[in-house]
Amino acid sequence: MEIDARDGRSLYRTLAGAVVPRPIGWIATRGPDGDNLAPYSFFNVATPKPPTLAFSAGDTREGLKDTARNAVETGAFTHNVVMADLAAAMNETAATGAIDEFDRAKLTAVDARTVEAPRVGESPVSFECAVVETVDFGASTLVLGQVQYVHIADQVTTDGKLDTDKLDALGRMTGNGYAYTRDRFELERPE
Amino acid sequence: MEIDARDGRSLYRTLAGAVVPRPIGWIATRGPDGDNLAPYSFFNVATPKPPTLAFSAGDTREGLKDTARNAVETGAFTHNVVMADLAAAMNETAATGAIDEFDRAKLTAVDARTVEAPRVGESPVSFECAVVETVDFGASTLVLGQVQYVHIADQVTTDGKLDTDKLDALGRMTGNGYAYTRDRFELERPE
Repeated sequence: MEIDARDGRSLYRTLAGAVVPRPIGWIATRGPDGDNLAPYSFFNVATPKPPTLAFSAGDTREGLKDTARNAVETGAFTHNVVMADLAAAMNETAATGAIDEFDRAKLTAVDARTVEAPRVGESPVSFECAVVETVDFGASTLVLGQVQYVHIADQVTTDGKLDTDKLDALGRMTGNGYAYTRDRFELERPE
Repeated sequence: MEIDARDGRSLYRTLAGAVVPRPIGWIATRGPDGDNLAPYSFFNVATPKPPTLAFSAGDTREGLKDTARNAVETGAFTHNVVMADLAAAMNETAATGAIDEFDRAKLTAVDARTVEAPRVGESPVSFECAVVETVDFGASTLVLGQVQYVHIADQVTTDGKLDTDKLDALGRMTGNGYAYTRDRFELERPE
């Protein structure tokens, strides 16, 4: 099957279905009417040096643009890692019409230390980010933030370092699907 | 544990360990000395509208910058989906010093239809992309490409549509780790 996309047709389903698994950016911002928290899966490291995260907001549902607008206006956001046992809470923050997602999901908004944004107290790892650049696509905005500060809970460290095995991370698939990351293997990179 | 990153210390290990699972961008470009193919996990959809993919190249290993340079010079790259049964071939293309990764990994370079780049004949889904923007971080470059054309093998479609279940996709974890996406669950998004 072939799809010629030069005619401007929507590729949402194909992109969301083929680019999997995606990490979940659980992005918190502070707005004029309160705090916002929502999951984004068009999210990843933009570059490790300088340490920078990027998320794309605004495409698919009304209201999501709030997060991008808040991030730009305050120059700040936090990303909070979603462990498997936070999946239900994360999903609550994906509701379309929710006003206060922290309250709705029974999560604790903790003030970030270096930027003007809340972080999720229950998340095992939080990255505080300062917005350094945005790429405007019209219907959506890619927001890039440089990491200023990281909080890592002791429960996910071993010998004083982050232990990915203890994160029990989830990946975003297509539709309503999520994948566990417990079934793993290793490949040694060749010379 | 807390990390103050404002002093410029490396967060590579923390980012690669906490932002998981990452989708694998298997990026092919055409250079003056031949074709390049390598996996990138700082990769995702940048926005579905217009359909745009982004990958970050150049940070960690010598030579990887070739891909970003080729993409900018030709204005083109392809992304090729890695199914689990292509994992070994994908890993061969991650070798540091390889000159012709297609040859080394015994993969077929097929000319893209709409852009000046090769695609991986063995990949079940290939996206042909035209470079629309770059974000320069010094040591690395984030390359954004708008999808022009998509090839989807019949083996991964059902009723004429891409079927994610048939992709058997892999996620990138930290170190040499990869995760299968076979263990999944669904969460219905609340109103």
